[in-house]
Amino acid sequence: MSAQHRTFFEDLETGTVVRFGRYEVTREEVIDFAARYDPHDFHLDDAAAAKTHFGRLAASGWHTCAMTMRMMVNQMHDKGIASMGGAGVDDLRWLKPVYPGDVLGVETLLLDKRRSRSRPEMGIIRRQITTHNQHGEPVLRYVVAAMIALRDPDAPFEA
Amino acid sequence: MSAQHRTFFEDLETGTVVRFGRYEVTREEVIDFAARYDPHDFHLDDAAAAKTHFGRLAASGWHTCAMTMRMMVNQMHDKGIASMGGAGVDDLRWLKPVYPGDVLGVETLLLDKRRSRSRPEMGIIRRQITTHNQHGEPVLRYVVAAMIALRDPDAPFEA
Repeated sequence: MSAQHRTFFEDLETGTVVRFGRYEVTREEVIDFAARYDPHDFHLDDAAAAKTHFGRLAASGWHTCAMTMRMMVNQMHDKGIASMGGAGVDDLRWLKPVYPGDVLGVETLLLDKRRSRSRPEMGIIRRQITTHNQHGEPVLRYVVAAMIALRDPDAPFEA
Repeated sequence: MSAQHRTFFEDLETGTVVRFGRYEVTREEVIDFAARYDPHDFHLDDAAAAKTHFGRLAASGWHTCAMTMRMMVNQMHDKGIASMGGAGVDDLRWLKPVYPGDVLGVETLLLDKRRSRSRPEMGIIRRQITTHNQHGEPVLRYVVAAMIALRDPDAPFEA
């Protein structure tokens, strides 16, 4: 996915809330991801899942992270955001199980932004990411720090 | 993966360090994961990656989380750990890029453990997870809280 960058660090405003994405969770994909990366019974098999607090086949939590990332990359591409990658994640919570048939969406809140002193061509933004299901219930929440390119890397630092 | 549970909450000791796992990162898998979940140029294409701080094609950070989970599930299975799933992750940091050809391993440190008051059949353990590459360099670190079944759910709470 090649993005023409149109949205730079300077364009992003603290406090902004954005909602986007639509990801249909299929049974096939839940099992496929789990078989490869998280082969617990309760991510692979209905009968095993029924014996747990999940109640029925549920997606791996890391799969939910991956599906969320896909929606975020799609949105970054749509908006031409000059992303330079993620640095870290805090306070990640799997709030509710994600089931085949669920339709996920994302809400982001820009918590804060600052320029990098060591790398003046970029800034760091921190966003709270909430993934919700079709009932509007949050299923995943975390805070991610991401690196975003500046439009004008030569701009002086603000006092 | 069906595990016969042999290792329960009572068996896990704070401060224990365990090293395990061997995951060969292939170019095909890096591109496959990225195409599906994290289609940034620098996870898909050498020329695009060369223009970034990655230098060359690098795995999605979420892919590194997924590969780490696979090693952890294998180990839980080998040890028969009575895992009931993860609750959340803190302080996740992608410390170095992961490249095709890297061979990953995991080191876990059991930080603390406590019984659940609301669900006396289980306990919560917190582990620091460090994924390292074949040079012994840490590439990913996080703290995860996981739910582990008790061998004896009727045991009284310690004072």
